[in-house]
Amino acid sequence: MNEQILIKTLPSGKLAADHYERVASPMPEIQAGEVLVKTNAFAITAGTRAGLQGSASYAGAPTTGIVMGGTGVGTIVATNSDAVQVGDQVLTSTGWQQYSVQKPSNLELIPAGHDPLHYLGPMGVNGLTAYFGLLSVGEARAEQTVMVSAAAGSVGHLVGQMAKIQDCTVVGVAGSDQKNDTLVSKLGFDAAVNYKNGDYRAALKEATPDGVDVYFDNTGGFILGSALFRMNVGGRIACCGVVSQYDTSSPEPGPKGIPGLLVNKRITMRGFLVFDFADQYAEARSEIHGWLQSGALISLTDQVSGLAAAPDAFVDLLAGGNIGTRVVVLD
Amino acid sequence: MNEQILIKTLPSGKLAADHYERVASPMPEIQAGEVLVKTNAFAITAGTRAGLQGSASYAGAPTTGIVMGGTGVGTIVATNSDAVQVGDQVLTSTGWQQYSVQKPSNLELIPAGHDPLHYLGPMGVNGLTAYFGLLSVGEARAEQTVMVSAAAGSVGHLVGQMAKIQDCTVVGVAGSDQKNDTLVSKLGFDAAVNYKNGDYRAALKEATPDGVDVYFDNTGGFILGSALFRMNVGGRIACCGVVSQYDTSSPEPGPKGIPGLLVNKRITMRGFLVFDFADQYAEARSEIHGWLQSGALISLTDQVSGLAAAPDAFVDLLAGGNIGTRVVVLD
Repeated sequence: MNEQILIKTLPSGKLAADHYERVASPMPEIQAGEVLVKTNAFAITAGTRAGLQGSASYAGAPTTGIVMGGTGVGTIVATNSDAVQVGDQVLTSTGWQQYSVQKPSNLELIPAGHDPLHYLGPMGVNGLTAYFGLLSVGEARAEQTVMVSAAAGSVGHLVGQMAKIQDCTVVGVAGSDQKNDTLVSKLGFDAAVNYKNGDYRAALKEATPDGVDVYFDNTGGFILGSALFRMNVGGRIACCGVVSQYDTSSPEPGPKGIPGLLVNKRITMRGFLVFDFADQYAEARSEIHGWLQSGALISLTDQVSGLAAAPDAFVDLLAGGNIGTRVVVLD
Repeated sequence: MNEQILIKTLPSGKLAADHYERVASPMPEIQAGEVLVKTNAFAITAGTRAGLQGSASYAGAPTTGIVMGGTGVGTIVATNSDAVQVGDQVLTSTGWQQYSVQKPSNLELIPAGHDPLHYLGPMGVNGLTAYFGLLSVGEARAEQTVMVSAAAGSVGHLVGQMAKIQDCTVVGVAGSDQKNDTLVSKLGFDAAVNYKNGDYRAALKEATPDGVDVYFDNTGGFILGSALFRMNVGGRIACCGVVSQYDTSSPEPGPKGIPGLLVNKRITMRGFLVFDFADQYAEARSEIHGWLQSGALISLTDQVSGLAAAPDAFVDLLAGGNIGTRVVVLD
């Protein structure tokens, strides 16, 4: 059988684990040109919450009764294609299930000797998002100050480290002192500020004495608003995600000061999706792999065991429960 | 005597004429290196309202008891400098007064044969703002759709015409049917939509069947919000001004969909000030002058007579009373 987690109902407010149901389906059969992938692990990322929210999302209109989507790594267990062999490790859109039928065009082979879990983190969508958002969209350069929100998250913790590699000053914003300790003591952030503290704005000001040149925005909402007031003239805001607004049916209005502060400080805000940089992935991965090998970049993962744990792990992630990339490892 | 209009009190809500007072001061005397300029006309522009609003504006912190600021054209009537001669026509920060003392470094000579009033419109800050905002910030290119708000205003009516010169499709947004008729019938806009009508959003949608590639934002507020939903993937928003938010002490929050829609549609919003393009003014003016000469660009002015009329003219402008550049012509 193929154990799967389906979207049972769409959330109208906050997401809960009972919006999902676990089912045992017949093992799928592959047709000509198809392959069968056994899921070894998949990542849980806040952005997929947008796919449950309505048609305005890049993730498309939501549907119930389907397997919850997600990117995973797996092993080829059967193949009707010459492109891959049984035993190959691949990155693909496994979804939340034990087995999936894939076309070779939807697979990325993980080179021998590479850690497959890195392809759910720094070598995958999260790492590429951090890389292009920071360097191409944010145009971070040496000696500038970079601020990042959801800084302990799957993308944020990589953004900050990549900015340190560029010789930037890095200030993270996260929602617990424990996360912030990790960012500073383990990942080399210059400072980290807890947005849940009452003195958040004063602490952010103190942590950014030279203002902010690049703000990597994973949250939107009031953290974006606080960043606007710290931006330097000519600053760039890389708009990557809106985690503060996903888990609701009534997103907040945009921050005060838009567009007034953009004009006064000649700020550029630019939304991006990593897929727009697909033609530069190979080059970026080569550089990121080098950083991992040298130890300049540390991949933090937050592992959860077993498919059944995925819904609770997602709900907890939306509440800020993870440090690093949350990965569900299947038995 | 030198008739002047001073800022008497700062507005806490809407601006009113009695925030100003008219005084007769002694004729100023020039020192070594200075010149005396007799004001012939000055422009009234919405952006100067920001200067009365608080320290967050690029116009600096507001002060009372000083002459109201503004850009004007005048004639040199006395000089202690070899740089200019009595009788020269100049563009300078005259303020709202009959005479001002200037340093030659703060003067731009208006070439003989040029219409001085054009230097308060298409050849001045308004025209340069339209030019760089549309072409450098908005990156408008042939066959794209350009939307502009405050489209009948001093900047907006030039933006739309410059976009037509680039072979764009142009949709204006303004607050009266009379303005919109002028935009379409006199200035060649493809369509113009009245934001005060109940069916504004539907009308905007109908007027932009191919979406919007470049939105030139003079207003902020809900018109910016309406534009966000019409933007094409990869669209650019040139943030020029926030006229919807100037005449109040409590600016609205930013539009819904920021930053979510920026991400989904990979939109770039960029604030700018024309002064950042100062090194390219000469080239731009040469091109704009050619358009004026050929009749491709029409400068609409909305003239008011006499210094005493300036406060009411400003209040009326903030309520949307002008078509084209509002100019106060002195006796």
